[in-house]
Amino acid sequence: MNVLIVHAHPEPQSFCAAMQRLAYATLSGAGHQVQVSDLYAMNWNPVASAADFGQRSEPDYLVYALEQRHAYGQRTLAPDITAELDKLLWADLLILNFPLYWCSVPAILKGWIDRVLVSGVCYGGVRFYDRGGLRGKRALLSLTLGAQPHMFADENAIHGELETMLRPLQRGTLAYAGLGVLPPFAAYHVPYIDHAAREQMLADYRRYLLQLDELALLEMPTLDAYDGRLRPLHR
Amino acid sequence: MNVLIVHAHPEPQSFCAAMQRLAYATLSGAGHQVQVSDLYAMNWNPVASAADFGQRSEPDYLVYALEQRHAYGQRTLAPDITAELDKLLWADLLILNFPLYWCSVPAILKGWIDRVLVSGVCYGGVRFYDRGGLRGKRALLSLTLGAQPHMFADENAIHGELETMLRPLQRGTLAYAGLGVLPPFAAYHVPYIDHAAREQMLADYRRYLLQLDELALLEMPTLDAYDGRLRPLHR
Repeated sequence: MNVLIVHAHPEPQSFCAAMQRLAYATLSGAGHQVQVSDLYAMNWNPVASAADFGQRSEPDYLVYALEQRHAYGQRTLAPDITAELDKLLWADLLILNFPLYWCSVPAILKGWIDRVLVSGVCYGGVRFYDRGGLRGKRALLSLTLGAQPHMFADENAIHGELETMLRPLQRGTLAYAGLGVLPPFAAYHVPYIDHAAREQMLADYRRYLLQLDELALLEMPTLDAYDGRLRPLHR
Repeated sequence: MNVLIVHAHPEPQSFCAAMQRLAYATLSGAGHQVQVSDLYAMNWNPVASAADFGQRSEPDYLVYALEQRHAYGQRTLAPDITAELDKLLWADLLILNFPLYWCSVPAILKGWIDRVLVSGVCYGGVRFYDRGGLRGKRALLSLTLGAQPHMFADENAIHGELETMLRPLQRGTLAYAGLGVLPPFAAYHVPYIDHAAREQMLADYRRYLLQLDELALLEMPTLDAYDGRLRPLHR
């Protein structure tokens, strides 16, 4: 399969960067085609703005999603967006590899999501969740964090359940665009663990990557369960 | 009181920008001191990087939070960060005013969070949640979104409950840093409603802003309910 790894850590020697390199080596070694977008190395611009469009459908009032749709049709999207969108459409598997900043992705990666998940291609109108533009592809989050597992173990944990904290990314973004979402790989407590524990974590990550096809996708909404106004059919 | 409005919309004529101006006028009119950080107008840099530190404690390996702490102590934080941090520390109330992009803040605002909520000042060590560095201050989210209320009404709704989707921001960020979190003001379905409905929504927002002191803070974790390893004392 084709794999796109989008990596967002400012330190090339970080454990997070080691995870990215391991994923590249592991998946390439298993015969897959792998591309990496290293957002810090690329000096990626995360700010969605009017400058993203060569030609505007409405020059006097910016509705970002409408201009995305227009510019995609006219082939006037900014070249940096087009290059990433091409990689995304090529990929069968998308890996977002990042350190958890404020319970979410670093801004540079949020800006990849904001700018590259183009309306009219990845979603739009009634094309979302299981009818999303990226349906048939899969995605996963691979993240590092300072917290320990018990701090995100369940809803009684101090930060609640990890999956709930990741909802905007896994459900509101990946599943919304139609991607099948694999369980996340979370590398806990990274700044505080010793070398042996890090090596073990990398070994765990390698095994996880080689067993992706055996993992069930996370449960996400299906539009058939909602009426034409998107109200739930059964409660 | 002192109010800081951090605003992040690329279109100055947007409804979201109208909400920002209304908040400024309403709170100023009520006798409060108000500052606005209009991130797009400021050309705010959202990317947390080594360039944020004039002098590094570890020049060869970047741990962003540790360098924040060091640079704050040495007064070598980048001037754009220092200016925003000064406003934040001055404020009694923080308003984040933004359009919901992918169930979260636009990247430019995520980068304000990443860079301005400085470790060692806003949080750090055991200073988080009700012991966070910004305790005693309050915050609220005022947001615009395309969805309708029933799509975020409760956990059966197609996107689940709004408060759950906002958890990384309200709990993982604002409450984590010690801020008391007021209920959000969500302006639903904005791109699709008529002028009269928009006027009504602005009137609702004005009334909400004038009644903030009557609103209960959202319930958030208190460290007293957890042991020294942050495990819940009662289940």
